Amino acid sequence: MRACRREGVPYTPVWLMRQAGRYMKEYRDVRARYGFLEMCKQPEVAAEVTTYAAHRLNVDAAIIFADILLIIEPMGLDLEFAQGEGPVIHNPVRSPADVDRLREVESIDALDYVMQAIRITRRELKPNVPLIGFCGAPFTLASYVCEGGGSKNYINTKRLMYNDPGAWHEMMSRISRALALYLNAQIDAGAQAVQLFDSWVGCLSPDDYREFVLPHTRSVFENVKPGTPVLHFGTGTAPLLELIREAGGDVIGFDWRVRLDEAWARVGHDTAVMGNLDPVALFAGAEHVRREAKKILDRAGGRDGHVFNLGHGILPETPVETVVALVEAVHELSQR
Amino acid sequence: MRACRREGVPYTPVWLMRQAGRYMKEYRDVRARYGFLEMCKQPEVAAEVTTYAAHRLNVDAAIIFADILLIIEPMGLDLEFAQGEGPVIHNPVRSPADVDRLREVESIDALDYVMQAIRITRRELKPNVPLIGFCGAPFTLASYVCEGGGSKNYINTKRLMYNDPGAWHEMMSRISRALALYLNAQIDAGAQAVQLFDSWVGCLSPDDYREFVLPHTRSVFENVKPGTPVLHFGTGTAPLLELIREAGGDVIGFDWRVRLDEAWARVGHDTAVMGNLDPVALFAGAEHVRREAKKILDRAGGRDGHVFNLGHGILPETPVETVVALVEAVHELSQR
Repeated sequence: MRACRREGVPYTPVWLMRQAGRYMKEYRDVRARYGFLEMCKQPEVAAEVTTYAAHRLNVDAAIIFADILLIIEPMGLDLEFAQGEGPVIHNPVRSPADVDRLREVESIDALDYVMQAIRITRRELKPNVPLIGFCGAPFTLASYVCEGGGSKNYINTKRLMYNDPGAWHEMMSRISRALALYLNAQIDAGAQAVQLFDSWVGCLSPDDYREFVLPHTRSVFENVKPGTPVLHFGTGTAPLLELIREAGGDVIGFDWRVRLDEAWARVGHDTAVMGNLDPVALFAGAEHVRREAKKILDRAGGRDGHVFNLGHGILPETPVETVVALVEAVHELSQR
Repeated sequence: MRACRREGVPYTPVWLMRQAGRYMKEYRDVRARYGFLEMCKQPEVAAEVTTYAAHRLNVDAAIIFADILLIIEPMGLDLEFAQGEGPVIHNPVRSPADVDRLREVESIDALDYVMQAIRITRRELKPNVPLIGFCGAPFTLASYVCEGGGSKNYINTKRLMYNDPGAWHEMMSRISRALALYLNAQIDAGAQAVQLFDSWVGCLSPDDYREFVLPHTRSVFENVKPGTPVLHFGTGTAPLLELIREAGGDVIGFDWRVRLDEAWARVGHDTAVMGNLDPVALFAGAEHVRREAKKILDRAGGRDGHVFNLGHGILPETPVETVVALVEAVHELSQR
């Protein structure tokens, strides 16, 4: 929490995106008993995997176990996690008429299971470990909504954007209003910080980001209750960093493809930053990871306002012991 | 050719990566009769699709129909294009012992079909349309060789790189020597320019690029016969542009995620550049495409040394008429 506010810290805090995930045996054991969406919708289960991961890794924050796509269900989209295939949306948005049928989310009751999970987790976590809530950013959600799932080239998304800018902006506005409600509900339930994941925004040119995305992402930030740090993360964002900063966020997250010192200078030292170890480094053993962590800490240069993290989520086959070694290395190497 | 050398041109020349490809009915008709590798290995067929596409689109250059992976067959790798699945390498390189068994390519005879295709195409093309030869860059080839096919996270590639840097450098050296031979053979056969495709290099941090890739890519450039323009292209390269320039090339290709003017300034105005329309723009109709082409031409600012291209290959479902409209628009809007 202090790092998010760029206050002094005894060592650099660290948490890892997707720290409660498939790479962890205890997670797979739970996951074997439930479908993925089912796991998200059972507050005790979501709380259990959230808390377990934070405890096992000895990280300095927990992030609630959930999925960025949960919010699109109350918007009228038919979401399924097909076995081994990732998310599928059976009624994707492809036309202005499809945009019209997106429901305005008036209340967040349909996602009350997330708030319950946050309340339970907050009770079970050690008091000094803050709990992070999150949501997808408008563009990344829109990309799933238009493509009907994950994508490589985002053809349907960009086609709507370019051919029907009016419908595009209407969709993005509806999503953004839903997201602000959702984040505020998470904060009310006990999330002490919240993160926007704009995971796929790196497929856009800076011009497109500025015109089609920035105003909407900004509106989410403007509507989150003041006083709660907001983290803003995306991948492939090297060409977009200044614009991402302009969109908002107290902490800007970087992927591993930028140098932390250069990226921090670009977004400005009056903002906190998060990152940025390549998740694949964790496949190369503890020694390599320690060396890479040191490089990143050196580039942060002991400046207040650095939250250590990966440059994207932990990958499924990652060895847990290397993840534990990373957390230890960050704590040890960053002692003030 | 003049644009590659930053000499004056009457209008901005344009060609399109993967211009002879699946989006074109005439290509699909040919493809229906042959397997993909078979098509590459039949010089008349490769020449036919190359020439047809250049003629149909009225572009200012042709690029020989081939695949970046052909060169790995004489290195002892067992390559297959499985139906609808992309390339598969049945004996990928995962260990130093696997690197040892990679054959040194002493002669390029095994790829003589490519040189034949170049000779035939050169005869059949209009004399004022130059023919471009190409190869994959060392990193992109190594990524296929290590992963055994396409990849999302490049775990096997980076694992070898980080854990066995000696074996990594040995593999990259063998690949690079083979590539120089291969490009020179293409030049001897009649290719007037050659392009290195480092399509997946954007998955690397700048540090990793500098240490594990740059010396090898540079060695390819250093060993290409002088006097032939060499184009150097990759995607997701925004954080790497200065290093890519350092590696070499007379023309640096950009993807759509950077602004052409900013990227050109970064690589230096003493180099020619190529790019950079988002291939997905072609799904949005001729008017949008014309507007976007104008934006790119404006950013090139009439400076000598701009070759218009997409920021990556044409996508399979692209409407041909929009591609034709793009070429016309570039010619018309860039009249000096």
